[in-house]
Amino acid sequence: MSAPSLDPVLSRIDSDISAATERLMELLRIPSISTDPAYKGDCETAADWLVADLASIGVEASKRPTPGHPMVVGHAGPEGADVPHVLFYGHYDVQPVDPLDLWDKPPFEPELQETPKGTVIRGRGSSDDKGQLMTFVEACRAWQEIHGELPCRITFFFEGEEESGSPSLVPYMKENAEELKADVALICDTAMFDPKTPAIVTMLRGMLGEELTVIGPDKDLHSGFYGGAAMNPIRALSKVLAALHDDQGRVTIPGFYDGVPELTDELKAQWEGLGFDAGKFLGEVDLSVPAGEQDRSALEMVWSRPTCEVNGIWGGYTSAGFKTVLPSEAHAKISFRLVGTQDPLAIRESFRTMVQELLPEDCKVEFKAHGASAASQMEISDPAFEKARQALSDEWPNPAAYIGCGGSIPIAGHFKKILDMNAMLIGFGLEDDALHSPNEKYDLNSFHKGIRSWARVLDALSR
Amino acid sequence: MSAPSLDPVLSRIDSDISAATERLMELLRIPSISTDPAYKGDCETAADWLVADLASIGVEASKRPTPGHPMVVGHAGPEGADVPHVLFYGHYDVQPVDPLDLWDKPPFEPELQETPKGTVIRGRGSSDDKGQLMTFVEACRAWQEIHGELPCRITFFFEGEEESGSPSLVPYMKENAEELKADVALICDTAMFDPKTPAIVTMLRGMLGEELTVIGPDKDLHSGFYGGAAMNPIRALSKVLAALHDDQGRVTIPGFYDGVPELTDELKAQWEGLGFDAGKFLGEVDLSVPAGEQDRSALEMVWSRPTCEVNGIWGGYTSAGFKTVLPSEAHAKISFRLVGTQDPLAIRESFRTMVQELLPEDCKVEFKAHGASAASQMEISDPAFEKARQALSDEWPNPAAYIGCGGSIPIAGHFKKILDMNAMLIGFGLEDDALHSPNEKYDLNSFHKGIRSWARVLDALSR
Repeated sequence: MSAPSLDPVLSRIDSDISAATERLMELLRIPSISTDPAYKGDCETAADWLVADLASIGVEASKRPTPGHPMVVGHAGPEGADVPHVLFYGHYDVQPVDPLDLWDKPPFEPELQETPKGTVIRGRGSSDDKGQLMTFVEACRAWQEIHGELPCRITFFFEGEEESGSPSLVPYMKENAEELKADVALICDTAMFDPKTPAIVTMLRGMLGEELTVIGPDKDLHSGFYGGAAMNPIRALSKVLAALHDDQGRVTIPGFYDGVPELTDELKAQWEGLGFDAGKFLGEVDLSVPAGEQDRSALEMVWSRPTCEVNGIWGGYTSAGFKTVLPSEAHAKISFRLVGTQDPLAIRESFRTMVQELLPEDCKVEFKAHGASAASQMEISDPAFEKARQALSDEWPNPAAYIGCGGSIPIAGHFKKILDMNAMLIGFGLEDDALHSPNEKYDLNSFHKGIRSWARVLDALSR
Repeated sequence: MSAPSLDPVLSRIDSDISAATERLMELLRIPSISTDPAYKGDCETAADWLVADLASIGVEASKRPTPGHPMVVGHAGPEGADVPHVLFYGHYDVQPVDPLDLWDKPPFEPELQETPKGTVIRGRGSSDDKGQLMTFVEACRAWQEIHGELPCRITFFFEGEEESGSPSLVPYMKENAEELKADVALICDTAMFDPKTPAIVTMLRGMLGEELTVIGPDKDLHSGFYGGAAMNPIRALSKVLAALHDDQGRVTIPGFYDGVPELTDELKAQWEGLGFDAGKFLGEVDLSVPAGEQDRSALEMVWSRPTCEVNGIWGGYTSAGFKTVLPSEAHAKISFRLVGTQDPLAIRESFRTMVQELLPEDCKVEFKAHGASAASQMEISDPAFEKARQALSDEWPNPAAYIGCGGSIPIAGHFKKILDMNAMLIGFGLEDDALHSPNEKYDLNSFHKGIRSWARVLDALSR
């Protein structure tokens, strides 16, 4: 199903795709790594680029300062009580690039590459989230160029701290609730179910980040003279980390599973219907055995079950050669993916208590918090969801599915809590995009049909 | 007890101490870190400095090339069948200096500092082993200056790879056995029992070094999308490391304790007589509970029991901020201190087998060997030991003791095996020298009375 007003927009998108790709490349060349202070200036540059690009399609946009990296906010399109009003959210910051030596090309020198699976746009941020963000902007551009105005009222809202815990986001949304309020929020930061099947994510895991430093002796020691008698903090930390999962893959933190819901039979059936191939999913990264709770399916492990992962660990001598040091400190960064109504702060407290109890008398521990957000669940009863699902189904080979997502996109919950808006998570990433990894890519097909998809969604939501 | 020939030498040492200290400072300014290829040139410079300094006291010395850093070998003193002949060994290479930010002063800008415990020489290598090595050289210098020649035949033998596993040492000793053979070997790379009690180490732990890399997925993954389903190599590595010790502090590797002897009642009694204060020993590094086998004394833990220590661990994201990566690899450097007749190679094999068995099906592991040396035991029946013990007792407040040493000094075993020489380990380091740590120091008193001690030992061995 399409409409007279839509077809010319789709044609325009097709004819403009190479120019659109070049615009994305420009944005990808800006190394806007938000978590590393060394790239602060680049985050400003990326924000400026977006302000200018929005202006080029008639959007009044501006940079809004925050204690961290700036927001970019803009408004456009017809106004009026009867005009639908959507807010679109994306983030212009990207993940760090280490380990740099595993990149085949410099991460911020994006290029089109031919692969057995088709043409891809290679470079940091190509998928997460600059490429995804631009699918929406390009859809608006085509609509503007064909019809001289957008199909509905649109508020653009881009942040630059998503990859570093969004410290400024909630305060900013609260202070600017009036300006940001719309009928529904659209977010493009998620993946398709598979290359043929578009998806609307209706279930998002929350995230709790913790960093701990275990301290043994007050200085690094010679393992010969003290080895055996002095407690080694790496040994103590290993005991703690090893105790976080039992043999069945269950997280052992007391109370961790409070508020973890079971799937409804309906959703369970829908997911089984998707024919998810766990072997293929893991096979793509050279693994074969689902590592989570052994009584759960791999799809549950990544979509609807909570997790505990050590994201980083370091201590002692880690350079070339060998040094028989008995280190003073050992460190770990740990993240928990949360579901249902799990309480991040209660889990943080229970985790810290458990660590204290597991450490030997002679070890001290220091904790550092790295963000805490609960999981969120969308209200798919909102008619906008069915409209969007139909529009996506019109663009892709398979009908669109309501799915869960392992990643944490706290913004969806914030829109609900702070602005009382439902958020629709529609994205065109793929499993093999290598998000947060070396050689990140975005399929040209994701980019092109993603733009077309947004044109269809905007058309559907505007009726 | 002293002798007419000795007294003027001791006086000369006293009057020359500040010049001797300045000579040591020169050597300390050369950053001869052997384990890091970046400092190869500095190791050459340190060797050249020693050749020149030995020449200045009439020793024919020269640099001897090896596949790694050069040896320095020199000969001096009267010759003849009836003249005693000693070999002196030391090493001119030093440990890396990281973590650099914990140093109060640049590690290679040595200086004298006043402390509550007296004057110290601060800087990397001040104790291990440049300061100790120079105590012997300075004793020879004083003897040479007073008597015009050394009291006996002396072969000087310095290496530059001791802190990186001495890869060239054994081949070199074998190829040059003829030149290096002497009646007894003197080694200055150990500590006193306490600041008042000199010691001859007669029991040395061996060392086995292992590095392992645990590999999970074939690339870093986004913990949101894969977290829960993909095996995290840090989690797998933690399980392995946590399993290496049981709750009683015993190492769990099968066969690990094969060849670990019990102390003789005699030695046990002698050690108890030393009145070692475990609380003070650990208290100096802000610890209180001996971490080793709970049914052993702290002195046994560091002198006569084998250990397993993780010297370094790293994996995933370890920089500032937070990155929810599920890493592809996790790494650890592990060292084992060996005693009695423990077989390093058998333990390496057993360790690797155990690791393989502990890892989940989905993880691969790569091992890298970092040296393997058995423990060694000295033959104190050799009369040289009692002569030296008496000479040391004459210099210090308390009589000298035969003790064990937690550190590994494989050279002692090599002298025995390759050159059939007994090695006497006499050193003047102290527990709080911060060997291998930031702010390493050597007491000026250790340096001064160490030089005097060697003058006495040379005198005693020459009769």
